[in-house]
Amino acid sequence: MKKRAVILFSSGLDSTTVLYYALFKGYKCTCLIFDYGQKHGKEILSAVKIAKSVKTEYSIIKINLPWSGDSLTGKNKEIPVHKHLPKTVPSTYVPGRNTIFLSYALSCAQSVNARSIFIGVNSVDFSNYPDCTPEFIKAYNNVLKALKTKIVVQSPLLNLNKAQIIKLGIKLNVPYKDTWTCYNGYEKPCMECDSCKLRAKGFKEAEINDPALA
Amino acid sequence: MKKRAVILFSSGLDSTTVLYYALFKGYKCTCLIFDYGQKHGKEILSAVKIAKSVKTEYSIIKINLPWSGDSLTGKNKEIPVHKHLPKTVPSTYVPGRNTIFLSYALSCAQSVNARSIFIGVNSVDFSNYPDCTPEFIKAYNNVLKALKTKIVVQSPLLNLNKAQIIKLGIKLNVPYKDTWTCYNGYEKPCMECDSCKLRAKGFKEAEINDPALA
Repeated sequence: MKKRAVILFSSGLDSTTVLYYALFKGYKCTCLIFDYGQKHGKEILSAVKIAKSVKTEYSIIKINLPWSGDSLTGKNKEIPVHKHLPKTVPSTYVPGRNTIFLSYALSCAQSVNARSIFIGVNSVDFSNYPDCTPEFIKAYNNVLKALKTKIVVQSPLLNLNKAQIIKLGIKLNVPYKDTWTCYNGYEKPCMECDSCKLRAKGFKEAEINDPALA
Repeated sequence: MKKRAVILFSSGLDSTTVLYYALFKGYKCTCLIFDYGQKHGKEILSAVKIAKSVKTEYSIIKINLPWSGDSLTGKNKEIPVHKHLPKTVPSTYVPGRNTIFLSYALSCAQSVNARSIFIGVNSVDFSNYPDCTPEFIKAYNNVLKALKTKIVVQSPLLNLNKAQIIKLGIKLNVPYKDTWTCYNGYEKPCMECDSCKLRAKGFKEAEINDPALA
């Protein structure tokens, strides 16, 4: 029987690379796609399309955070345009986001007998979110141990820069043209938000054209 | 300005005692009430009634766990009747439940600037759930530190037995007649499920009549 994994999956560059990585490593994957009040539904549509294309199970999980005041989910808040990547926690940080996602992944993993949860965090080219760091992943794995599970959070991109992630993904045949990274939901990526800028930096450093912009 | 706290609140004996404890300690409380597919809505109605009676803010959070196979939320599964309290994890354990609840509490606490999250777990007279232990609470607090928050999970009932909890609650004027403990949603508590049995044991040992049964 194939070993099983739960994948936190948003159709972004990182989590799509992680999905393909887990499939390459032989896992039977269950993708969790979160609808947590993002400004647009594009990433959810892209995630479903990719999950279907690789024939993995997926669930769309609706999350309601009535107290949210961040700019990623707040209806009256603008996604910020920074000249440089932020050195403090930016307004797009959704409080507790990865902690919430991981807790659902734990619940799913316990239920489907998966021993691995894959998350696409990386702490090199990132938006300075506190829930994308090695310290956070390590502490979360200690919670899984304290719960007496054998489940481990795997974060294979944690120490890679964006160019290295893209190069890994190209080897794994990740369909980057189908991934959606932008915080805004326009027809094309805005190329101004932090997320677009990080992606563009990665493709530039990898000396590869971003197929999503073709 | 009053210090703020987020309370995981189900209207059960433990979480109601914790709410009253936090209010007694001077916290301005926000109650999170979870609708996670329990077999009945009685505890949610009771929770709203109690939260309103003490004039605290509250949010009802809908949680969907499509993979759930436990007997507390599974539509075709019976709540078990055990002769003795279980020594292994019983079928009523909802995978990841407190981990999910705490992650929402973290999100809420970060958003409303609360430094405390109160949870009514206790590890003396309990149903052997792995997410009600000192190890779990300790590990979770390390996650909150890793996230560079100043939020702390407080579990004041952790080392009390049920009779001690009830005696504490009586001092705090907890309206035990309005609390709902039973896993089943009949007109009266079933007195057969583990939750009813633990409550009855506590009132018996405290030598107090349970006002919910009057």
